[in-house]
Amino acid sequence: MTEIEQRRHAVATRLGEYKIDALLVSSSANIRYLSDYTGSNGLILITAKESHFFTDPRYGLEASQKVTCKVHVAKGPLIPAAAKLIKQKKLKKIGLESSWIRLMDYNKLKEELPLGYSLHAIGPLIEEQRMIKSLAEIDRIRKSVQANSEAYARTMRRVKIGVREQDLAAELEFQMRMLGAEKPSFDTIVAAGERSALPHAHPTARRFQENELLLIDMGATLDGYSSDMTRVAYAGVPPKQVRDMYRAVLEAQLTAVNAVRAGIPAGKVDATARGVLKKHNLEREFIHSTGHGLGLEIHEPPRIGKKEKTQLKAGMVITIEPGAYIDGFGGIRIEDTVLVTENGCEVLTPTPKEFVSI
Amino acid sequence: MTEIEQRRHAVATRLGEYKIDALLVSSSANIRYLSDYTGSNGLILITAKESHFFTDPRYGLEASQKVTCKVHVAKGPLIPAAAKLIKQKKLKKIGLESSWIRLMDYNKLKEELPLGYSLHAIGPLIEEQRMIKSLAEIDRIRKSVQANSEAYARTMRRVKIGVREQDLAAELEFQMRMLGAEKPSFDTIVAAGERSALPHAHPTARRFQENELLLIDMGATLDGYSSDMTRVAYAGVPPKQVRDMYRAVLEAQLTAVNAVRAGIPAGKVDATARGVLKKHNLEREFIHSTGHGLGLEIHEPPRIGKKEKTQLKAGMVITIEPGAYIDGFGGIRIEDTVLVTENGCEVLTPTPKEFVSI
Repeated sequence: MTEIEQRRHAVATRLGEYKIDALLVSSSANIRYLSDYTGSNGLILITAKESHFFTDPRYGLEASQKVTCKVHVAKGPLIPAAAKLIKQKKLKKIGLESSWIRLMDYNKLKEELPLGYSLHAIGPLIEEQRMIKSLAEIDRIRKSVQANSEAYARTMRRVKIGVREQDLAAELEFQMRMLGAEKPSFDTIVAAGERSALPHAHPTARRFQENELLLIDMGATLDGYSSDMTRVAYAGVPPKQVRDMYRAVLEAQLTAVNAVRAGIPAGKVDATARGVLKKHNLEREFIHSTGHGLGLEIHEPPRIGKKEKTQLKAGMVITIEPGAYIDGFGGIRIEDTVLVTENGCEVLTPTPKEFVSI
Repeated sequence: MTEIEQRRHAVATRLGEYKIDALLVSSSANIRYLSDYTGSNGLILITAKESHFFTDPRYGLEASQKVTCKVHVAKGPLIPAAAKLIKQKKLKKIGLESSWIRLMDYNKLKEELPLGYSLHAIGPLIEEQRMIKSLAEIDRIRKSVQANSEAYARTMRRVKIGVREQDLAAELEFQMRMLGAEKPSFDTIVAAGERSALPHAHPTARRFQENELLLIDMGATLDGYSSDMTRVAYAGVPPKQVRDMYRAVLEAQLTAVNAVRAGIPAGKVDATARGVLKKHNLEREFIHSTGHGLGLEIHEPPRIGKKEKTQLKAGMVITIEPGAYIDGFGGIRIEDTVLVTENGCEVLTPTPKEFVSI
């Protein structure tokens, strides 16, 4: 069995637990995970014995070459095609991914199925399976992290005061692509000066100037897998207030990284970062969670947030990214991609975390 | 009233028609259309009299600066926050965007609301409104189309035989960003040789070689608005079979463009393209529809497909992109972005359509 077949098998063995005859998979990341299909229109139906893949004629050739499920090329929408098969095979209890399937598709499927058939909202069954990465997946994430850090290094070597945020973002993304990435894992954030206080700033025509912060949050998707890193630089010699804030955030980041190991609840890692920032009176300036899982998606379970009870396990890949944001002044965030191991963790991101002056 | 306020007003005036007290908007493109908010976590509730915007603390500052609805910054998930307001305001009949809201959110909202409240699946109400672009929107699309074509021209001037598909894609995307685009409107397609027969090929490490087709399908998102263009080139002098195929697809494209005008049903434009390809015995090789609307999303209504009854109207922006694909041999597609006018259309894409030899 290939790794992908094993993944489908693992799902198939859990159908009984949910009392369903089949699971209809509609999340595109889950579909990729279970079939290697990378197009934009697909559905998978997993029964105890077999898997069916549905797509439209645009992807028919690609799917027949690549997907090891039974491939069905539907001329119209995929839900009726799946419904037809469900009826043929008399699969009376169908599980649906409730975080992904849209109300319209749910209603359409309900309409198509006769009396005696039922639909069941299923939680993040496949996402839970995806939390623990295989060696092959970790290898891909490693490559993605390396391309991302190398793209950052190549760009920062040449960055000049006066550059526009959007041009810097363009250069970072070009470099990652030249290093083999398919695309950025998310819209690259480049935020200069007071704009760094917006945790998800879109790059603009604003130029990076003397005596300003520069926050860069970037990720590369390579072979389907994401990476995520944030670094902050300063144009000139940072004043004491900025240095202190940087040091506090870095301490929070390092302390949280140190807390990561198999067995610890995610919420405890978050509390560790939050505790350090509290000590420096920056707790209220830390307005998001400490991190998140990543893999085929840039945001996956587990969430490393307040009171999260999920226990970390070896093979999870998460970000650790505390930050502090002061409206009108600026923000600092430091973020690595980290692999959870039995006794601690491995920081995959090779980029140094010293406060850099440009 | 600003244009964005007018858009919300137009939605508010239609609530009665659907017998609902408020519409909960969950599509991110619709949210941007109604508020200018560009982040990843938002919800809008539109009542007859007012509009409420929900987001989380990461976007609180951005939203308070930019969004002219009443802004609510929720600490947890947005659905319970919206439910609370719905109860406070006693909005008993809530419309939901059934093509967008996910089953889980629907179930959660249903749970939160007491007896006497009801949820109603609403079709593409806002998408219909978005089909007709305002002058400001057309202006943005024009800029996006121009950046896209200019990025193509700059890249193709320097393209050399032997280039890898993925490096060419990286260069095209870099050029669009340097011309002001935020990102590609979709994963840029660069497909060499027989790979051009895959209508949605992802660029690979494969190199473009002598006596091969090269298909490029690209779009730039600039100021939120998309563009879409496909061109095909050949390395060397194309043989007769390829020239004939190119000529047939070009004839189909030009004839379909000529058919576009306000009042014609979308299906008739599709039939026009299909008719030309049939004449050249390529009807079965044309495995997708003739085009689609675009704007804030790369695929929007109307679909220019078989039997589509939607009548084209002045102000719609659509693609015209017939193609023919032969497995193992290659594919040709020619695509422009086109503005529908009262008496015909304006082809926005300035890139020439002659068959180019490299």
